[in-house]
Amino acid sequence: MKNKLRIGLIGSKFMGRAHSNAWKKAGLFFDIPLQPVLQMVCARHENSLHEFAEQWGWQQTETDWKKVVSNPLVDVVDIALPQHLHYEVALAAAREGKHIFCEKPLAMNSRQAEEMLRVCEEHRVVHYLNHNYRRTPAISLARRMIDEGKIGRIFHWRCAYQQDWIVDPEFPLTWQLRAETAQAGPQWDLNSHAVDLAHYLVGPIATVSGLTAQFVAERPLADESSSGNLQADALGDAKGKVTVEDAALMLVQFENGAVGSFEATRFATGRKNALSFELYGSKGSLKFDLERMNELSFYSAEDPEGCQGFRTIQTTEASHPYAAHWWPPGHIIGYEHSFVHAAVDFVRAVDSGTAIEPNFASGVQILKVLEAGL
Amino acid sequence: MKNKLRIGLIGSKFMGRAHSNAWKKAGLFFDIPLQPVLQMVCARHENSLHEFAEQWGWQQTETDWKKVVSNPLVDVVDIALPQHLHYEVALAAAREGKHIFCEKPLAMNSRQAEEMLRVCEEHRVVHYLNHNYRRTPAISLARRMIDEGKIGRIFHWRCAYQQDWIVDPEFPLTWQLRAETAQAGPQWDLNSHAVDLAHYLVGPIATVSGLTAQFVAERPLADESSSGNLQADALGDAKGKVTVEDAALMLVQFENGAVGSFEATRFATGRKNALSFELYGSKGSLKFDLERMNELSFYSAEDPEGCQGFRTIQTTEASHPYAAHWWPPGHIIGYEHSFVHAAVDFVRAVDSGTAIEPNFASGVQILKVLEAGL
Amino acid sequence: MKNKLRIGLIGSKFMGRAHSNAWKKAGLFFDIPLQPVLQMVCARHENSLHEFAEQWGWQQTETDWKKVVSNPLVDVVDIALPQHLHYEVALAAAREGKHIFCEKPLAMNSRQAEEMLRVCEEHRVVHYLNHNYRRTPAISLARRMIDEGKIGRIFHWRCAYQQDWIVDPEFPLTWQLRAETAQAGPQWDLNSHAVDLAHYLVGPIATVSGLTAQFVAERPLADESSSGNLQADALGDAKGKVTVEDAALMLVQFENGAVGSFEATRFATGRKNALSFELYGSKGSLKFDLERMNELSFYSAEDPEGCQGFRTIQTTEASHPYAAHWWPPGHIIGYEHSFVHAAVDFVRAVDSGTAIEPNFASGVQILKVLEAGL
Amino acid sequence: MKNKLRIGLIGSKFMGRAHSNAWKKAGLFFDIPLQPVLQMVCARHENSLHEFAEQWGWQQTETDWKKVVSNPLVDVVDIALPQHLHYEVALAAAREGKHIFCEKPLAMNSRQAEEMLRVCEEHRVVHYLNHNYRRTPAISLARRMIDEGKIGRIFHWRCAYQQDWIVDPEFPLTWQLRAETAQAGPQWDLNSHAVDLAHYLVGPIATVSGLTAQFVAERPLADESSSGNLQADALGDAKGKVTVEDAALMLVQFENGAVGSFEATRFATGRKNALSFELYGSKGSLKFDLERMNELSFYSAEDPEGCQGFRTIQTTEASHPYAAHWWPPGHIIGYEHSFVHAAVDFVRAVDSGTAIEPNFASGVQILKVLEAGL
Repeated sequence: MKNKLRIGLIGSKFMGRAHSNAWKKAGLFFDIPLQPVLQMVCARHENSLHEFAEQWGWQQTETDWKKVVSNPLVDVVDIALPQHLHYEVALAAAREGKHIFCEKPLAMNSRQAEEMLRVCEEHRVVHYLNHNYRRTPAISLARRMIDEGKIGRIFHWRCAYQQDWIVDPEFPLTWQLRAETAQAGPQWDLNSHAVDLAHYLVGPIATVSGLTAQFVAERPLADESSSGNLQADALGDAKGKVTVEDAALMLVQFENGAVGSFEATRFATGRKNALSFELYGSKGSLKFDLERMNELSFYSAEDPEGCQGFRTIQTTEASHPYAAHWWPPGHIIGYEHSFVHAAVDFVRAVDSGTAIEPNFASGVQILKVLEAGL
Repeated sequence: MKNKLRIGLIGSKFMGRAHSNAWKKAGLFFDIPLQPVLQMVCARHENSLHEFAEQWGWQQTETDWKKVVSNPLVDVVDIALPQHLHYEVALAAAREGKHIFCEKPLAMNSRQAEEMLRVCEEHRVVHYLNHNYRRTPAISLARRMIDEGKIGRIFHWRCAYQQDWIVDPEFPLTWQLRAETAQAGPQWDLNSHAVDLAHYLVGPIATVSGLTAQFVAERPLADESSSGNLQADALGDAKGKVTVEDAALMLVQFENGAVGSFEATRFATGRKNALSFELYGSKGSLKFDLERMNELSFYSAEDPEGCQGFRTIQTTEASHPYAAHWWPPGHIIGYEHSFVHAAVDFVRAVDSGTAIEPNFASGVQILKVLEAGL
Repeated sequence: MKNKLRIGLIGSKFMGRAHSNAWKKAGLFFDIPLQPVLQMVCARHENSLHEFAEQWGWQQTETDWKKVVSNPLVDVVDIALPQHLHYEVALAAAREGKHIFCEKPLAMNSRQAEEMLRVCEEHRVVHYLNHNYRRTPAISLARRMIDEGKIGRIFHWRCAYQQDWIVDPEFPLTWQLRAETAQAGPQWDLNSHAVDLAHYLVGPIATVSGLTAQFVAERPLADESSSGNLQADALGDAKGKVTVEDAALMLVQFENGAVGSFEATRFATGRKNALSFELYGSKGSLKFDLERMNELSFYSAEDPEGCQGFRTIQTTEASHPYAAHWWPPGHIIGYEHSFVHAAVDFVRAVDSGTAIEPNFASGVQILKVLEAGL
Repeated sequence: MKNKLRIGLIGSKFMGRAHSNAWKKAGLFFDIPLQPVLQMVCARHENSLHEFAEQWGWQQTETDWKKVVSNPLVDVVDIALPQHLHYEVALAAAREGKHIFCEKPLAMNSRQAEEMLRVCEEHRVVHYLNHNYRRTPAISLARRMIDEGKIGRIFHWRCAYQQDWIVDPEFPLTWQLRAETAQAGPQWDLNSHAVDLAHYLVGPIATVSGLTAQFVAERPLADESSSGNLQADALGDAKGKVTVEDAALMLVQFENGAVGSFEATRFATGRKNALSFELYGSKGSLKFDLERMNELSFYSAEDPEGCQGFRTIQTTEASHPYAAHWWPPGHIIGYEHSFVHAAVDFVRAVDSGTAIEPNFASGVQILKVLEAGL
């Protein structure tokens, strides 16, 4: 009988669902040393909280996050909240000796992040920052191929994270569009993922320049009482100022001499969750698109002359990272599976007492790049 | 508190996993009227059975399928077995008044299938045949678009189901390659799916001609004691005769005047689980590829002149079938999700006492086409 | 100063333009031993013929093809006519000792084709059948890769040639839709190309079964006085019977044990000139689509495990067939270039007195397959 | 009988071939008011010049460009030279009253360009700058769709021009890699095209920031006596300094509020001539890739809900710009055809005495952006 790892989840919207699913599924498909237990879930609105808890099988509910953090029945605090709340919750959790599984972006700024990191290290808790895309089989494979030397010296990183959910000027002023809750727009929300991948695949970034744009200055105020997948209703006719950027672009130099570009936007009509990158090296190149996340495109300059070309590796083979735990080759996985992989690796890290990446140190580095880009 | 629907699963390999996952997940993402309970699982090898039951949370285990079928704690018999065992189990289950969730292909032949259908109807049980691909959002959307008249009169159905798992002549002689357990090769395994989709999207088939091929006549005998994703070990040097076809092709005429082609093979090097179809009509056309199952390609002859082209609909919008229950637009789902959709619709059918499709009547029609094609 | 090769072109519509362009361009991009001269062009309608001759630089015009065939100034008779006229012209040309560059399909039937072949051989003229697609770089490369053993034993050939130019039932009854001028529909027009490629890439065909369909039985009579790219006007309200098939499908066995499928249609809404094939072998696979004719898709089972996938070879490298004569890598060529390649190889064959393929013997074999498929 | 337009071509390498082909082909496929005559070609090396002239049918040869420019038999001076020679030749040609067809980039800097423009205007000659990609059917169609309002307000322009011909550090130091002949690297060569397209499709650029990289600092000296498609031999072991950048990136703001990015490189392993762009607007979006130049990808937010997606328009329909002059739908054209379109439009401009775009004024604007980006 496995020991248990008791989770206290704070947040019950989009990320609350994705995390709940991950904790439940980790042990079904992977052999993990501890059994996650859905101990306690916390949210503000009692009615929807109870429904959520029943749906997902959380044993207890709580509307005050401080009671979760201090509860001796909780081993892990899972922070699935907007970023303006991460700092306070994470500090408290670390001080209680809880391990932390934290949504991205890590914090409102790198100063907060540095303190969060320091306190976690002081209290020797495992801290994980959920840039889950690292743990798609295709991106893990990309890293493995780079490590194996298949790409050679890297020259170029070209990345875009494109969505279109606020093109309509009547889309309301949700928390993501206000600086006091989100700090920034796609620079924080989307480019944090992109910079994490660049750090993972290329290396540290040395210099940054950037450009932002705002296309819609005012929006109807939002009714955010309901949950939901990036959707919200307007409260009425009143409008408020959008206080974050709508698009954020960066040009960077990496320490290893590569150059890179980043483009994050919520105004790319037709792009829903399109995180894509191209990476060019002296021996080969890679291309990825999250909307076809089971594929990695690879060009090898070492293929025989006349037979070279970008090949589409379907990352569902047993030899691909994580893939053997799911289905036979050709049977694809989806968005939520990257959260399962994160949960699996987090459980293992807690069990073995080792660090996991990305973590709060990664978050500090990411935020410093993002701050430089604004 | 919801009423329960107690499942008795027979089979614990590839399909046993896929079904277990589906029963667990159905209620998490969908609002269903009954709560599936993983009551009892049955398989031959006691050791691996216990491990499987513990992994997935099945409450009881059993090595004799007859005891599952007759157990009053079981409401639904879930048949996740090779096809040569479907007939006997299904007849017994129906006679016990159990609802049946049955893997495909339905039976060894249409005579068996007809009897299975007759007995189910006699005992008024809900019978479902798990051609799960119908319940991908993209294929459900295809059907909706056809029903809405967007395609017009259908001229052509062109379908292939291509895999490559037995190209290596040293791949052993598993049950899928012997007539006594499988009846046929890809004609039963793969073309049964393809014919189901053709029936679903185009309509009944009037005439059939066919061609089969066998590329490897003898293979090493197989050790099939282990489970696993279409993988198996050889027992030693001894060889046996392959008694099913390696590839099966058909040309058909539909009752509505359309013509169709089918190609099923396990010798398409590079194709892992590539079920694809093209469908051409007087007003528009559709194209689908299971390896990119979140996409449906659509050409509309009614688009303005000069702006016509095949468009890739990413079937992750809230307006697409099933999709609103998962993640925001652009966040894809995977292979296993079609099983969840099947479980959801099955639970609803049982609750309301209505039929669900495809069912054993569908299976009879499919097997008649497959038989004509051999 | 090069010797001249004087061309007598018979036909001035779509193929007349394509051939004129090819003769003019061959010597510009390739080093050929003889200089093609646009000596004489022949067509029925004197006015448009003169315009055509002036546009393209043909030195003489003629409205009676017999005068072209017998003219001592003509070395090559270029037959760019509908198929019902090939037989008579080719026999006459061969008997005058003219080399023959003949459009496809070769003839109305294999009996005609056999006589055409016999007479050409008797009079020792070079005879070429213009299945031009063989001479795209991608398809020539496919053949080279097969010859090099990169594909291994071939299991499957899957081919479709799909167009949509007569989906509209008001499209008039042009010569292509009447048996007396065309013999058959897409079986002759499109599947002749497809069978030629199958012969070229896979080998001889041993058995054939087929299916045809007619979707529109009557059409307005056509005014075919104007030239034009597969377009025509109706004469008025009168209608006539369509006497050829609208779609033709075949299943075949090759002598080497491979199986194949063919699908040719003019009713694939959205497909304009979509000749595509897939070819699966024991070591690798190939995929081609004429609408992206500068690309060949290749899967190698000999790539390292974990890095396998279909790669898109852009066939514009100097090492690819014909490509070095055009532009730098990445600068694509178009439809008309395959005609230039055909003209180049034909000129070389005439100069050296050697045979060229495909020729009338190829045409006999193709027609026998097509006849068996009807 | 048409009046003639006598061309004097200066340059006989890659661009010399492309222009020669264009002048010959313009009148074959298009109805143009003047007949281009290949009057005179000029290059430095007499032997290869004669061969070139004979191959292409140029009536006279000349090794001194000044004699071309001043020759009364010449109506048009076609400048197919490296950019460091454009200034002097263009000034002389304009002063002789010759119309000018000039390769890109226009000049070494905007100061030269402004003087070239001024002198052309003074002498009222037609001046054309050959950013030929504007005249692919797909890009012309993109512009038409923008003008028709199908895209709405433009938010984003994202463009890359990627090649890989100098990844090998042993590739020699050709004129393109030295500042005295090329001024800059991909910023001049590739981003000039990209900025031209941005001006054409989005509008004027207001602000620019940039980043460049150099990956290889020294290369073997080059033997540039031979012509050839971007290929060259090393002279020996001696090396010289690369004095231009290897990659150039820019972020820009357009006057209309859109933001844009540009990335030009010769170090994108696997990319041969990959000019691609994405353009996102409030009503729709466009995507283009030169390696599939017969396709334009279009997303319309005005398509019915549930049926939205990027559609691939194959720009070979008669309704598409330029396409009716070539082949039936689905029969693609290639790289060289954009030069033919340029020649056609240039001839018409000369005949009618109207301006053509892009011209030297466009070149001035482009160079100002490029200078700002370095």
